[in-house]
Amino acid sequence: MIETPYLLFLGDAPDALAAKVAQGIKDWRPDNCVGQFRMEGCKADLKLPDMDLAEAKAAGAKTLVIGVANRGGVISKAWKKVLIAALEEGFDLASGLHNLLRDEPDLVAVAEATGRSLHDVRVPEVDYPIANGEPRKGKRVLAVGTDCSVGKMYTALALDASLKKKGLKSSFRATGQTGILITGEGVPLDAVIADFMAGSIEWLTPDNDEDHWDVIEGQGSLFHVSYSGVTLALIHGGQPDALILCHEPTRSHMRGLPGYTLPSLEDLRDMALALAKVANPACKVVGISINTQHMSDAEATRYCEEVEARLGFPTVDPFRHGADRLADALAEV
Amino acid sequence: MIETPYLLFLGDAPDALAAKVAQGIKDWRPDNCVGQFRMEGCKADLKLPDMDLAEAKAAGAKTLVIGVANRGGVISKAWKKVLIAALEEGFDLASGLHNLLRDEPDLVAVAEATGRSLHDVRVPEVDYPIANGEPRKGKRVLAVGTDCSVGKMYTALALDASLKKKGLKSSFRATGQTGILITGEGVPLDAVIADFMAGSIEWLTPDNDEDHWDVIEGQGSLFHVSYSGVTLALIHGGQPDALILCHEPTRSHMRGLPGYTLPSLEDLRDMALALAKVANPACKVVGISINTQHMSDAEATRYCEEVEARLGFPTVDPFRHGADRLADALAEV
Repeated sequence: MIETPYLLFLGDAPDALAAKVAQGIKDWRPDNCVGQFRMEGCKADLKLPDMDLAEAKAAGAKTLVIGVANRGGVISKAWKKVLIAALEEGFDLASGLHNLLRDEPDLVAVAEATGRSLHDVRVPEVDYPIANGEPRKGKRVLAVGTDCSVGKMYTALALDASLKKKGLKSSFRATGQTGILITGEGVPLDAVIADFMAGSIEWLTPDNDEDHWDVIEGQGSLFHVSYSGVTLALIHGGQPDALILCHEPTRSHMRGLPGYTLPSLEDLRDMALALAKVANPACKVVGISINTQHMSDAEATRYCEEVEARLGFPTVDPFRHGADRLADALAEV
Repeated sequence: MIETPYLLFLGDAPDALAAKVAQGIKDWRPDNCVGQFRMEGCKADLKLPDMDLAEAKAAGAKTLVIGVANRGGVISKAWKKVLIAALEEGFDLASGLHNLLRDEPDLVAVAEATGRSLHDVRVPEVDYPIANGEPRKGKRVLAVGTDCSVGKMYTALALDASLKKKGLKSSFRATGQTGILITGEGVPLDAVIADFMAGSIEWLTPDNDEDHWDVIEGQGSLFHVSYSGVTLALIHGGQPDALILCHEPTRSHMRGLPGYTLPSLEDLRDMALALAKVANPACKVVGISINTQHMSDAEATRYCEEVEARLGFPTVDPFRHGADRLADALAEV
């Protein structure tokens, strides 16, 4: 569990895209963000107050979160200076970088000397159990995709926000690095040992109030041969009561797999539902989330209407249209 | 890669079952076994020559393989004495035990001093790639099960033996501890990091002669919620051209999951084939392997005939009937 609130470190981000993790945290958990720390030459701007370490400390920040991708997989000397100063000022550090904070001897030494924590959210820090398959109290909804990177995390975060806005009980359950940094906790599923994948998701979504929704972040796709096993573990460990189908209609092939075409939404519905029913025979598909970022407003509306007529489920792009219709659909489950 | 031939260490096995790993090695790779090492009180007997370390060394043995389960997950002092002597005599050690050889400081020290290797086959020793899904040359067959522990490894080993007997090119590809000890190499799939599962199976079954069969050991089951993700990674990483369905008909529930009933062979056929076709659209189900250990000969024959009539695939218990009919079915692929 990462201590909040955060000071978001944007470093020397060459553009806004390089700081997309920080942007996600600010978009979805603005209350967790006291300010941004930008170095000279930083081209990203979250429109948060610019703060140095002392100002952020005074404003209550507990953790400096690296919200920016580093170039070439190396933590630069310029960054290092800030990170060490942050530890010395009493901040914990949190990072989703591929190269780990814990592999940097100078950071480890200062963290030990100051009693601060280094959170590498790519690395599991829990000994997860093997899944036991037993039913749990409370409700769970999972976003599944025709492909990787079609908007499953965004859909889950938007659905969680919409449920909360309606006064319903909901928890976003992060299963990837960005999601974990946004919420401060979760399971880095892609880094879990095979035998414990499903168990880690049972651990993440334990017994809860009968009227509480766990909104589980999806990973991969049943149809993406590189990561499908991760997706199935998520379906069987999560025991969802409800599935949201996610799709990006303009893609010509599966992400990173030029030889593979995308399945249809019907294929996804049938396959995901059949597999989900193994763990939860009552599971239903309740809605569809379309990522229409490469379409005009008119095209997006037409496409969603066409899909809704064809498959019979509420169909929206949560970014354009909000997720309220998906949240409403959960009320029926 | 574990050096052969082996001296099989049976320790103080309380019964034959405790030495079932050693039994598997002896049954399937008798040429790899120069003898057995039994301690006082050992109740298992593989009918191999009893040898001490010096005799086995003289007979050419390179590796002492721990072919017996230890009690209480502890490597006892009595075992340790033998293992250290073996290292000193120039043997490598290989083990599939949960508690690792490499976690025993005295074994590590002696192995370093003598230049010998400690093989813990539960632990991956390769940095596997992420699967790229590209088609590979050669043929692949995978055993998939309605449940865990229904005879998938036995089926694959019997099929490999039958193909070889017919003069065909075949390699058994191990994906679990016992299989790895039997063949001396493989992927301990249940211990691989989630993101690399499918890639590890691509690595295990690379390009080969067009008329060569990789006979891939199955793991778990698509219908077993604890391990289904491992199974799907195996299906998508293995890109099988052929599937063998495996079933044990007398089981009342999924192994370790009292609340879960087994799927039918028809359910397994449909689900496994649909998922396999994502990676290899030409994949076919070619045969069925029934584990009839809890049936009489007459019951077993009747059951296999009934299944064969119902599903239309050659159906055998490889243990009772041999795997030749399954091997013949591969000739059609």
